[in-house]
Amino acid sequence: MPEFNPLLFKDPKEGYRLLTGAVVPRPIALVSTLSATGARNLAPFSFFNVVCYNPMILAFFPLRFKQGEELKDTVTNIKETGEFVISVVTEAMAPAVNACSGKYPHGIDEFEVSGLTPVPSRIVRPFRVKESPVQFECRLHKMIAFGDGEGGCDAVFGEVVQVGVDESVMDGSRIDIGKLNPVARLAGAQWSTIGKIFELERP
Amino acid sequence: MPEFNPLLFKDPKEGYRLLTGAVVPRPIALVSTLSATGARNLAPFSFFNVVCYNPMILAFFPLRFKQGEELKDTVTNIKETGEFVISVVTEAMAPAVNACSGKYPHGIDEFEVSGLTPVPSRIVRPFRVKESPVQFECRLHKMIAFGDGEGGCDAVFGEVVQVGVDESVMDGSRIDIGKLNPVARLAGAQWSTIGKIFELERP
Repeated sequence: MPEFNPLLFKDPKEGYRLLTGAVVPRPIALVSTLSATGARNLAPFSFFNVVCYNPMILAFFPLRFKQGEELKDTVTNIKETGEFVISVVTEAMAPAVNACSGKYPHGIDEFEVSGLTPVPSRIVRPFRVKESPVQFECRLHKMIAFGDGEGGCDAVFGEVVQVGVDESVMDGSRIDIGKLNPVARLAGAQWSTIGKIFELERP
Repeated sequence: MPEFNPLLFKDPKEGYRLLTGAVVPRPIALVSTLSATGARNLAPFSFFNVVCYNPMILAFFPLRFKQGEELKDTVTNIKETGEFVISVVTEAMAPAVNACSGKYPHGIDEFEVSGLTPVPSRIVRPFRVKESPVQFECRLHKMIAFGDGEGGCDAVFGEVVQVGVDESVMDGSRIDIGKLNPVARLAGAQWSTIGKIFELERP
């Protein structure tokens, strides 16, 4: 069996390839923020998951750029304003969400770049994404730094203060996976839909 | 559009249903630990993802049981020993992994319950799972508590110190998603395979 010791990597990107190839499929958070001066930003993150439900906390882990470069606008904006919206990504949204993932100059509005539509939130100031059927409005709970340069991250933990769910994806009081039709990230440029669904009752 | 404010939930489990129905598909960490006295434990967690790659850090978020109940053995063991192994879950492993998810009495060995095979790790003391093609040996980096009762969690951040990858899932130096054939968790009792794979180049 091939064995990999991170201490022996010539390039830390070898670790990135192993992690992104093996921790799959990853759900996608499309994160909407505002700068302190009100400039919109929208960016997708697949190092993302639920933390707990009481309180309702979601986390995502934005990687740091190279040393000397600025923090990602998403992280800067959340540090400045303490607010963000996480929108769930469906198959129909995938090309537009990918358009939000480019390294654009500081201050570029990815709503304009992608054609996605900003709509006002109920509680926080950053906008929701109209095309997404589930939106989590969040307030910053905690931010924690990991590592100290490229390949590290500024972990963002947000408490959910409001949730909007489009009726089209609901089945009674629950979200229906077939109606939601989410996409996930795999390694490299790969994305995927949900495949075969099966049920296993807990013992 | 139906709107949900967590402050108005009659039962915090309503938040759990929204989170697990919308943050999908979730990758699965099958976590192997040893107690201070050497008793084996094996349990799956789908609140799990990559944190960063330099250093290589993985995180999972084990929910807390009801007040008065003990912590999960996984959390207790990691607090005591500082070591664990995360094995990736394939479709063939799903029924056995589900068997590890029951609330068994303290000290039960889920390797025996599930029929999964313990094999020695290279660096840490907890065992790898032979049936899994990718294993991350981890040392505890940080543990952080969220909430203070049922529905909160003890977040576990582990630094990867060794990775084993079976040749059968590799394509040159990368992991091939078709060969890996991982499964993911959805809401309730639902699991899924990977569906349609497509590529989108970053702009």
